[in-house]
Amino acid sequence: MGAVKNKRMPRAVREQQMLDAAVRTFGQRGYRAASMDEIADLAGVSKPLVYLYLNSKEDLFTSCIRREAAALMAAVRAGVQPDLPADRQLWDGLRAFFAHTAQNPDGWTVLHLQARTHGEPFAAEVTAMREELVAFVTQLIVVAAREAHRDPSLAEGEVAGLAEALVGAAESLAAWANATPGVSAKQAAATLMNFAWAGLGNLMDGRPWVPPKQ
Amino acid sequence: MGAVKNKRMPRAVREQQMLDAAVRTFGQRGYRAASMDEIADLAGVSKPLVYLYLNSKEDLFTSCIRREAAALMAAVRAGVQPDLPADRQLWDGLRAFFAHTAQNPDGWTVLHLQARTHGEPFAAEVTAMREELVAFVTQLIVVAAREAHRDPSLAEGEVAGLAEALVGAAESLAAWANATPGVSAKQAAATLMNFAWAGLGNLMDGRPWVPPKQ
Repeated sequence: MGAVKNKRMPRAVREQQMLDAAVRTFGQRGYRAASMDEIADLAGVSKPLVYLYLNSKEDLFTSCIRREAAALMAAVRAGVQPDLPADRQLWDGLRAFFAHTAQNPDGWTVLHLQARTHGEPFAAEVTAMREELVAFVTQLIVVAAREAHRDPSLAEGEVAGLAEALVGAAESLAAWANATPGVSAKQAAATLMNFAWAGLGNLMDGRPWVPPKQ
Repeated sequence: MGAVKNKRMPRAVREQQMLDAAVRTFGQRGYRAASMDEIADLAGVSKPLVYLYLNSKEDLFTSCIRREAAALMAAVRAGVQPDLPADRQLWDGLRAFFAHTAQNPDGWTVLHLQARTHGEPFAAEVTAMREELVAFVTQLIVVAAREAHRDPSLAEGEVAGLAEALVGAAESLAAWANATPGVSAKQAAATLMNFAWAGLGNLMDGRPWVPPKQ
């Protein structure tokens, strides 16, 4: 039915519809179990057209990963305003991250779970996005420390580690929030701020946590 | 050569040698590229003996994941003494976690990367260990909050979220620390304590981070 109705759509629009259907199918069924028949049906097109436009199941999955990764990065970047105070920037970034992963649960499953589970080429696509996210957060922490005139000597390696910890915590929490009924995006962001902000704030003020003597 | 020398070893000992060789090979080459020939060579036994004892490459990999997961959990449990103060327990647990992942980089690569990248049955093995780790950390936070008479009402869902965040941060940091020259296990643990402890401490004292009004 959709196939007839959509006949005169531009290729770009139709490709997005195919990708929408594919993300949903890969996210809900998993990469292996998802069938090209189901994806074509859901997109309202013929299976040969999916192959014509997106080549193979592997290439279609790669296109899904790239689109979802770009959308998540764009959402986080759009959420942060560089002229606001540091804790506000982090809060806004986390709100944007958890709002996006909550609103796109299938996209997040594709990125966080499916892309990592089905071989190295797919996993490498997600690694690239993750590195971009870590670089963005690292820069946010560096600028926050500098602009607040807090601890300008906060070591580069320490900041890189903090950014890794923050991104790892956010990924883990997003998967948990999506799988746990009643946890909102705002709650997940607040949990991470509670966990992280006071620690980061103290550190930037030059008051690190001191290990016990023994 | 080893095959002759090891001829009279008990089966259990020889299996551990095969698993040692397999963890090293899977960790360094990756699951797909690792060959049973190489594993048998490294273990100093014949390839048929590896198949006789451990059945198939899939089963051997599963045995590696299970052994490494159990060893990591045991190291963390052994590191924590329940009668010490809360921040000390967390510090000790993190020290044990990062020391173990630093001393067993191939084991950690098998758990964190390889097992997650090569299909759902392997990924499920790691998920089981991760759930055990999250439950352990959750319990640690709950007991800490209760024993310190800090915030007995710290909501269960909030604690579960904090535990997810902490485990996600630790996983991410361990991978980063192993891949970054010059980062010691102690530094990685201190980074995570800096990141997390002040936040957790404030939260338990009933001083959560407050989101900006708007």
